[in-house]
Amino acid sequence: MSVKKVAVLVAGSWGTALASLLADSHSEVVVWSRNAAEVDDINQSHMNRRFFKEVVLSPNLKATLSMEEAIREAEAIILAAPSAAMRGVCAALRPLLTPVQLAESLIVHVAKGFEAETMKRMTTVIAEELPEYDANKLVVLSGPSHAEEVILQCPTTVVVASGNVAAAEAAQDLFINAYFRVYTNPDVIGVEVGGALKNIIGLGAGLIEGLNFGDNAKAALMTRGLAEITRLGVKMGANPLTFAGLAGIGDLVVTCTSKHSRNWRAGYMLGQGKALSEVLDSMGMVVEGVKTTKSAHKLAEQYEVSMPITEALFQVLFAGKAPIEAVSDLMGRVKTHEIEEV
Amino acid sequence: MSVKKVAVLVAGSWGTALASLLADSHSEVVVWSRNAAEVDDINQSHMNRRFFKEVVLSPNLKATLSMEEAIREAEAIILAAPSAAMRGVCAALRPLLTPVQLAESLIVHVAKGFEAETMKRMTTVIAEELPEYDANKLVVLSGPSHAEEVILQCPTTVVVASGNVAAAEAAQDLFINAYFRVYTNPDVIGVEVGGALKNIIGLGAGLIEGLNFGDNAKAALMTRGLAEITRLGVKMGANPLTFAGLAGIGDLVVTCTSKHSRNWRAGYMLGQGKALSEVLDSMGMVVEGVKTTKSAHKLAEQYEVSMPITEALFQVLFAGKAPIEAVSDLMGRVKTHEIEEV
Repeated sequence: MSVKKVAVLVAGSWGTALASLLADSHSEVVVWSRNAAEVDDINQSHMNRRFFKEVVLSPNLKATLSMEEAIREAEAIILAAPSAAMRGVCAALRPLLTPVQLAESLIVHVAKGFEAETMKRMTTVIAEELPEYDANKLVVLSGPSHAEEVILQCPTTVVVASGNVAAAEAAQDLFINAYFRVYTNPDVIGVEVGGALKNIIGLGAGLIEGLNFGDNAKAALMTRGLAEITRLGVKMGANPLTFAGLAGIGDLVVTCTSKHSRNWRAGYMLGQGKALSEVLDSMGMVVEGVKTTKSAHKLAEQYEVSMPITEALFQVLFAGKAPIEAVSDLMGRVKTHEIEEV
Repeated sequence: MSVKKVAVLVAGSWGTALASLLADSHSEVVVWSRNAAEVDDINQSHMNRRFFKEVVLSPNLKATLSMEEAIREAEAIILAAPSAAMRGVCAALRPLLTPVQLAESLIVHVAKGFEAETMKRMTTVIAEELPEYDANKLVVLSGPSHAEEVILQCPTTVVVASGNVAAAEAAQDLFINAYFRVYTNPDVIGVEVGGALKNIIGLGAGLIEGLNFGDNAKAALMTRGLAEITRLGVKMGANPLTFAGLAGIGDLVVTCTSKHSRNWRAGYMLGQGKALSEVLDSMGMVVEGVKTTKSAHKLAEQYEVSMPITEALFQVLFAGKAPIEAVSDLMGRVKTHEIEEV
């Protein structure tokens, strides 16, 4: 698939990193932003200092304040809004799409999270807001991919999933380059659930480090956390093997162990005794894991799945439980003859 | 199972940590060492400063230079020798065991690695050297458990596996306490293969960090590494689910991300350009991953399993390939339409 123009909505940290990557190998890439200073920074200095202080972006990348201009004649549209903003962005996008774009364009979303109120996956939200587009062709891109490293061209691997094989392969062709390796996977549900729920475990891993509980405890949390994510995902229709891959373990590892992870940092501050409001104020960016914990807590009830780590974090975030108490409860549950169920 | 006396062979870092843990909840625990200074340190100062500079061990723990004294009337024997020394320790143990001990004692090994020359698992080696003992009753203990944290009573979870459920449960009872959580698993092969092969990926993770390739690359290595470990393990007779548990992902995570991991540190130094001989000299402790890479390389051939990460590390360790070249080859293999196979 030869793509003449790619539009990226919006210029957050991940959107900017992917737009710059795409602009290195495609002739026309335009990123949309609501922030005039950011648009100027990209167009005039080839930088987006709001997110990347010292990185020069692809000189081929253009930014615009007009969504209409961004998507005009675009053959591929990358939806890089945070999950809380995805519905609004798609609603604004709908009247701008031409019949040719609705029939032929490639739409890839790269958000990690559910819609908080409805607990819907992002492809469901997008399909609802773009009813003229074939929902089966929607693609999700996920995996262990901190924007801060992709922008520096560090070697990175991701997964693209779609119900339509040709669409997944088109997305693979669009993104792949020498440092960005793209695998395909047909399991949209598994890739979306893995990408969203790992943020909960990332919060928990930060919490454990904030409490100074050690690496053994963190590894146990990640292992048992992946098991409970997999249990929920399978009930929602995912392939369990997806959770053993890049969108499962891979993304979980990077979220739980990297200094770049917002969820980890939020958990770490909570573990050190800071209040949730204080943590969120100090981050200055969306912490998907906080909202996702609430969504997953509801989903666990709805699907009748045991998720003790999610439950413990829910108690810390929304019911005022002390982190040390929640984690001690979780780790200290001494039971004899407990078999490891995966 | 009420155990009057436990013997631990030998007083390495893991043996010492487990012996001290056991001495807190069992009346008589004796650890055997070939090192007179170490025996004195444990008996007189309740310390083992060779491994733990500032930690006071259980005052109830005793050490001896005599294996015969250590195992006399022991009802449980913990084999904590490195994998390279396991056969010799068992050969020395055999003539000392009484008929009652051969029939009734609990034998648990805690080594992570294969026998280098034969590529045999540790339970196979032990069974060959102790032919009068029921091999099916042998127990392996594994999981994410750095000795440096267990000795400080950090929360830790492990798995005990045996072909004999009663033996696994007896080991669970023996070790479990408020900060050391023990699960049972019937899959001896999976637990032994996971514990051994994760050391290879730990080396690789260190190498990637030594090369400054970033967290995205490390997460990719861990994910693809777990996939190749699982492929080999399944061919050897393991349950694939074991690799999604504490002896698989759990141990992999702690090996690849913890500053306590010897394999990670060895890989890190290699990545920074040091020679293998220099790295091994500077460690002062056994680096299981180096030997295991050689064993796994042979096993991959024998079982006809594709193990690209093991192959790359083999080339670095034993064929003089530059780390940057090996890792670049591995990460840079750009293929279109590559489906993620787990």
